[in-house]
Order: sequence, then C-alpha cells, then structure tokens
Amino acid sequence: MTGSAPSPGSLFLQSALAAEGHGLPAAEFDAWFAGRQRAHRFKLEQIPFADLKKWSFHPESGNLVHDSGRFFSIEGLRVRTNWGKVPEWEQPIIVQPEIGILGFITKRFGGILHFLVQAKMEPGNIDMIQLAPTLQATRSNFTCVHQGRKPPYLEYFLDRSGSRVLVDVLQSEQGARFLRKRNRNIMIETDEEVPVGDDYVWMTLGQLLRLLRRDNVVNMDARTVLSCITYALDGGEPPVATTGGQFGQALWRSFQAVGRGLRSNEEVLSWFTQQKFAFDLDAGRIPLQTVRGWERTDMEIRHETGRYFSVMACAVEADNREVPSWTQPMVKAQQQGLIAFVVREFDGVLHFLVQAKVEPGNFDVVEMAPTVQCITGSYHDADPALLPPFVPYVLSAQPESILFDALQSEEGGRFFREENRNLIVAAGPDFPDDIPSNYIWMTAGQLNEFIKFNNFVNVQARSLLSTLSFAEPDRS
Amino acid sequence: MTGSAPSPGSLFLQSALAAEGHGLPAAEFDAWFAGRQRAHRFKLEQIPFADLKKWSFHPESGNLVHDSGRFFSIEGLRVRTNWGKVPEWEQPIIVQPEIGILGFITKRFGGILHFLVQAKMEPGNIDMIQLAPTLQATRSNFTCVHQGRKPPYLEYFLDRSGSRVLVDVLQSEQGARFLRKRNRNIMIETDEEVPVGDDYVWMTLGQLLRLLRRDNVVNMDARTVLSCITYALDGGEPPVATTGGQFGQALWRSFQAVGRGLRSNEEVLSWFTQQKFAFDLDAGRIPLQTVRGWERTDMEIRHETGRYFSVMACAVEADNREVPSWTQPMVKAQQQGLIAFVVREFDGVLHFLVQAKVEPGNFDVVEMAPTVQCITGSYHDADPALLPPFVPYVLSAQPESILFDALQSEEGGRFFREENRNLIVAAGPDFPDDIPSNYIWMTAGQLNEFIKFNNFVNVQARSLLSTLSFAEPDRS
Repeated sequence: MTGSAPSPGSLFLQSALAAEGHGLPAAEFDAWFAGRQRAHRFKLEQIPFADLKKWSFHPESGNLVHDSGRFFSIEGLRVRTNWGKVPEWEQPIIVQPEIGILGFITKRFGGILHFLVQAKMEPGNIDMIQLAPTLQATRSNFTCVHQGRKPPYLEYFLDRSGSRVLVDVLQSEQGARFLRKRNRNIMIETDEEVPVGDDYVWMTLGQLLRLLRRDNVVNMDARTVLSCITYALDGGEPPVATTGGQFGQALWRSFQAVGRGLRSNEEVLSWFTQQKFAFDLDAGRIPLQTVRGWERTDMEIRHETGRYFSVMACAVEADNREVPSWTQPMVKAQQQGLIAFVVREFDGVLHFLVQAKVEPGNFDVVEMAPTVQCITGSYHDADPALLPPFVPYVLSAQPESILFDALQSEEGGRFFREENRNLIVAAGPDFPDDIPSNYIWMTAGQLNEFIKFNNFVNVQARSLLSTLSFAEPDRS
Repeated sequence: MTGSAPSPGSLFLQSALAAEGHGLPAAEFDAWFAGRQRAHRFKLEQIPFADLKKWSFHPESGNLVHDSGRFFSIEGLRVRTNWGKVPEWEQPIIVQPEIGILGFITKRFGGILHFLVQAKMEPGNIDMIQLAPTLQATRSNFTCVHQGRKPPYLEYFLDRSGSRVLVDVLQSEQGARFLRKRNRNIMIETDEEVPVGDDYVWMTLGQLLRLLRRDNVVNMDARTVLSCITYALDGGEPPVATTGGQFGQALWRSFQAVGRGLRSNEEVLSWFTQQKFAFDLDAGRIPLQTVRGWERTDMEIRHETGRYFSVMACAVEADNREVPSWTQPMVKAQQQGLIAFVVREFDGVLHFLVQAKVEPGNFDVVEMAPTVQCITGSYHDADPALLPPFVPYVLSAQPESILFDALQSEEGGRFFREENRNLIVAAGPDFPDDIPSNYIWMTAGQLNEFIKFNNFVNVQARSLLSTLSFAEPDRS
C-alpha cells in the first residue's frame, strides 16, 4: 500500500456516507438476507445436560468442561467489591482464556471502502442468521480442535503482508458473564482479489449503519470491530461534509473532538486512575458446584430467585458451519437489559455521559461503560431511589429526546436469544449538573481515542457507539 | 490554576534545562545529602526467619505473611509460557495487591517547575538514603496498619482541589518479582505554600537529571514517576532550545516525535496486539512450600543452583520513619543485572529498540521492555549463541558507543542492595537491520505516549528513559 493513501479516518467517513455499495444495492438486501436464511438448514433444541456430547461436569469441581479442555468452560466465581450496592456474591462465569479473532477484510471499490460481511448462523441468534465480520473464530476453531474445516478467509488475517492494517487491538467482552475474555479486533484493507463466498457480501459502512437501526440484524462481533473505527481526520485533510440531520451533524463534530472536550484526555486518564484506586475487585474462581445461591437441575443451572441468567444445554444442527452438528452449553438471560448513553452539548460539542463500572470479569477493575447498563427486569417493581443512577431518567425519556432506539443481540455463540435495548437519550434542562464521581462527560472522539488502547471502554459502550450514524436523517 | 498556564511539556522542558534551582544550589547538594545521612540513625541486620515479628510462615501454605494480612506476602508461582527458552518453572513471588501512591508535589518558582524531593531511608538502599518522591506510601502505610504516624504530605494527594494534576497513571513494577503490582504515579502542581521538612528539598528536573548520572542516588520510585513526564510541546507553543551535546539534541528531537517514527503509533499498537496474541502466559499462585527447585533454610529461601534471588529476613532501626523499628522479609538478587537500550537514528530521529517481554508477574502477558533486560551473572560462562538477543552486542560495545552508563538501585523497601547497570548503546554500522519479531524501533516521544496509558511500558524501560538528559554535554 502506498504512503499517500487517505488516512483511515477519511476512508471510514467516506464509507459511512455511502448509502449504496458495489456489492449489493441497498434495496436488494432484504431479499438476499432472506435467501441466506432459506439456503441453510438450522435446528436448535434445548437438551438435558446428560445429553451433551464431549461436555461434562467435572467430577470434583462440578465445572462444565469440554473433553479437550479447550473452547470454554462454565466455572464458579466469588466476587468481593466496594463498588455498587452488593459487596459480595457468587455466580457462574464463562471462562475462555483463548484470544479469538474478529476480523473484517475491507477493500476500496471506486475509492469507497467496503467491508466483506458474512451472513452467519450462530445457535443463540434470534432468527439464526445475523451479519457478522468476515472472520469470527476462536483459536480452538482455527486450530481445528473440533476436527472440522478451517474457517474461510483465515489466511488473510494470519499473513497480512499484502494488506494494510486499519484496526488491530484486543477488546474485552461482557464482564458480567466472561472472566477476562478478550478478542483480537482486526480490520485489514487489501488490494488483492478476494473471492466472495455465497454467504458473504461487500457492503459500505453506510449500508451497515443503516442496518444497525434495525433490531438484531448486525451481530455483536461485527459491532465490536466497527466500534474500533476512528473517524477523526488528519489535520491536513480537507473537511468531509456529512449529510445527516441535527443529531448526525452534532455526532460528526463530536467524533472530530479527539483530544479535547469538557475534560482533557489527561483529565479523563486521571479520573480513570482514581476509579481504579478507589474501587477494589477481588474475583476468584471457585468450583461451580460450591457456588452459593445457584442450583443445578437436569436442564439448567439457575439462581434460586429465577433472576439474572441460567446455564442450559443445546443440540445444534447446521449445514454451513465447520461441523454439521454439535451440542454445547449456552447462557440464557432471564431479564431484559438496558444500555443507554445520555448525551448533552457542551460548548457546542456533543458529549456522552460515561460511567466507570466494576464488573466481576473485568480485566482491570473498572471499564468505561454507558450511562446506564443494567437488567431492567429486576427494577419494574423497585423503589426508584434504589435504582442505579439515571435509570428512571432514561426510562421516562420523552420520544423527542430519544435519538436512537434499537434492540441489539448479544453474541449468539454463547448467549441464547439475548437482546438488549440500546438507547441514546438527549439530556433535557432537568438533567442534573452534578454527576456522581464515577461518571464523566466525554466526546465521541475521546471515546474513539480510548478504544484504541486495551481495556478502557467496555463492549456495551463500544457497541452502542458503533451503531450511531451521522449520515442519516434524524429519527423524528 | 488558570487555563492559560504553559503546557506540562513546556514546563517540564524548561525545568529540565535548569541546572540550578530555588531550593539548593547544585554545588551544595553533596553537603546537604551527607548531612541527611548523618542526621539519622539507621541499622539493618539480617536475622533468622524465626526472629521476624508479626511475620510468619502460614502453617498450611508456607507463604510468608504479615499477621494483619496486609503489606505484602511471599508466595509461590507456577509459570507456563511459550515465550523465551524456558517453557515452565516455579518461583517465589511478592504478592502486593494494594495500589500505593508514588507522588511528587511540584511548584513553580520564578516560572520554573521544582519538585519536592525527599531524602528517604529504605532498609535495602545502598548507603541507606536515596532521593525519593515527596510521598511514597502503600495503602497499608497511609491507613496506618503499622499504627505509626501518617506519612507527611499525604493530604496534598488525597485532596487535589488546590492543584493541577500533571501526571496520574497506574504503572507496573518488576514483573519477575511482583505479581501484578501497580502503583499510582502522580505529580501535582500547586500554587499553595508548602512547608519543607528537614529531609525535603525543592529541585529542578535539571538538578535531578544531573544526579541521575551518578550511581544509586535517585531511587526507583522517583525514576518511575519521572518517567511519566511528557516532554512534547503543544503545536502552538514556541520552540525551546536545548543546551545539550549531540546525543542531547538527538534525544530532544526524539521526545518531540510523538505520533510518528519509523512505525506509526497504530503500527506499534498492532505489533503489540500481535505479541499478546502470539504469547501465552499462565501464571498461577501456588503454596510457597510446594515450589519446586527452591529450598528454605533458617536464614533464606534460595534456588538450589544459588542463582536468581533469595528471600531473607531483616531487622531495621530508623529514627525518621513512621515506626522506629521493625522486621520484614526482603528479596536479595544473586546476580548483577543489565538494562540497556540500543538506539539508532532513522530519518534523523533517534529510535529506541524496544522488546516485547513476557514476565511472570505481568498484568497483561507482555510489556514493552528495554532491548536487553537480563541477569548477566548467569551468562559469564555461557555460549554466546544461547544468550538473549543483543546481549553480546551491548556487552562488547566500545566506549564511544556508550551514551549513558550508570548503576541504578531497585526499590529499597523490598530489595536488598540491588543495583542494575543501565546502559544506552548507539547501534553501529554492524548492527543488524533484521530484528526478531518481538522487537520494534520507537522514538522517545512514542514511548512517552504509551507510558501515558496503563501497562504498556515496563519499569526497567521507563526507569532508563527517565534518566536521560538532553541538557547535558555528551559523555565523551
């Protein structure tokens, strides 16, 4: 690749503004997607744990493990923390120490960057198929522990000599469900000919962003990689005009505010250091069968209150995966979740209210999370004073303050039909000026900058940020 | 503080160029320092483990622990890794989960930033007293687990309302000795009156940098905080002229090369992600008494070969610490260490050859380390082909290629009279163009930039970088 190539920021901006692409006219997407659904045969069935093949409860620990010792396991976790209202608890946790690859191949057609998107079946997906990155593979996958086929396009990511790396960073996943899980989020740009398989299609970022306004079309793995995109232009580059509405314009300016905001990047770093200094997290693995408050039946492991989540077993049949049928444990949410950013302008620049949140599986105590990230089911009958901060504000927002609202799925390889409501809410004049000390206002550009480095911004915040388009008309 | 204050980069640069300060004429330093040595009574004695007070070996694990469960403990560690030549080993490790504070109070006198430096006794120090940050305290210290006095100046760091934060970041310590230890490295600038205690003095960065050319005067805690200084000027600021020699000038330009170098910051991040992806580190705590290859006598815990390090017990008397006498375990190195950067100009900008190094106590698998960081004692009789990369090159460097050479101490609160040779070696025309894949060339400005974030640059690399002055004449 030549040194005179446009900056990644410029490439991403132009692609985000392109509502049509080289691969598939936007109007034909629905037909193509329905065709991919019809082209394959999928079957999913909940089974008793006893019918799991190659998975079993370890005789001593009771941990749910694969015979190979690979893939992942369900173990117990004892948590102690001075963050939040619950100082100590125990829970099941997914342990998956291997770093996987989530990768997009990108290529310019007519100067516009396109992403090679996969229509991918995952057993836990709502409607089975969602749009995924070009490659989505754990190390156990691509070293073929399952003795199946190698995932397509793997070689583009292992040998990157013919391509330019646009994004390449480790990112965390759900700290409430996974113990210190990270994946390598990678995006490469190639000039080479890339064969396009039946389940793959080239799309612009604009096409993807439009589909992100729909419920449960673009999967979590795609969203986390897209969240690593930096839209900031190099100083010397000509400005790019956005086509969006008022929110789109504000978002656009916020993405360009990289090193500045209400608080400087140095102040944000100092605030974040203070959070890590103030909050303790002691999370230790314990045998699954000793976890207090949880019970195991033939069909599930569940909390005695029926809340939070359960662990279940599934049998899967699929004709387009590395192996045609398998069984595996899955995690099923018992309550709906809410993920929301409150946004507000300061000095004409849109800011996001970011929360420093402790979750038991976090790699380093706290990560930057959305303003609200919680299970809402538990709160329907709760005293508002006992709710996490800003939950009542977000849930009572008037329609004209809601700038984005969509249901987005969690990862269908581990989670059974789990979706969370993703919201962007504009702060009204009634929004408090004083915020708790573990909250801070940041621009989209500042969030972009911290996403570049490991373990700063959590998957919920990244995912929500990745869904926002500055090219579309406003909701109203 | 006003918004029109000079940038931290400009303040640090001006201070680094100031060979004289407001507090103490440079020529009087030696007399003052000797006076501090004489003013206090110190005594250190190795004792049998059985004579430790409030410390004991846990009856089941054999871990060496304090009765309070606080301060630190010596435990066992089992390590498995695919990095380097030894795939598996066990060793004692210092476990200190509390985050401590290492902090400098700074203040401008005549426009020049001065640092409030402490002449501090630590039991393991060579010559007992070294120059330290204003505050150096573990949480057990400042919450007074030892039932002694509160450390002086603590309140300036806990309530920072009257001051500007110049540096505030968690930084790692020795990954071969500590399990995931981090300290909060902090530097505040105040306008307030600050009382100066007998053991304290205001010094410019220029005075400190000159003392860093001497052996074992400035302690490790001071060096790690100083390493967090960013010298880069804001784009709009007038240039500042350096007074140094040829190496000083080159170093100066290298510190200003923040976002650019032979490899862009994005390329460095991608390289670092690849290292974390390629290398596994599985380090699990085990009972100290089960550690294979190590033996415990009445006086020490040592490796059966006599190599690496030993754990011993000491009795300490001091009249100027929070408590007047105590006993504690200490770690004693058995061999001399070597810490060296090879440097080379690319496109007229000085670059440092950085190594991605796995150490068992690392927080996140690898950190950026100096070109060479090893125990040299083990290699005196070794086949050069078996040595770590670049060790023979660095050890055989001609005097004219050696740009910096000093002995620097490790932390005297845990380590018994441990010093390492710190070297900067200019690469000659014979230096290989091809470097192993876990090495990369970076500018000083790029290293500065990564130091801003957690867990990128290890303490040895930071420490060596902090000792380099662009204001002094060249060595020759």
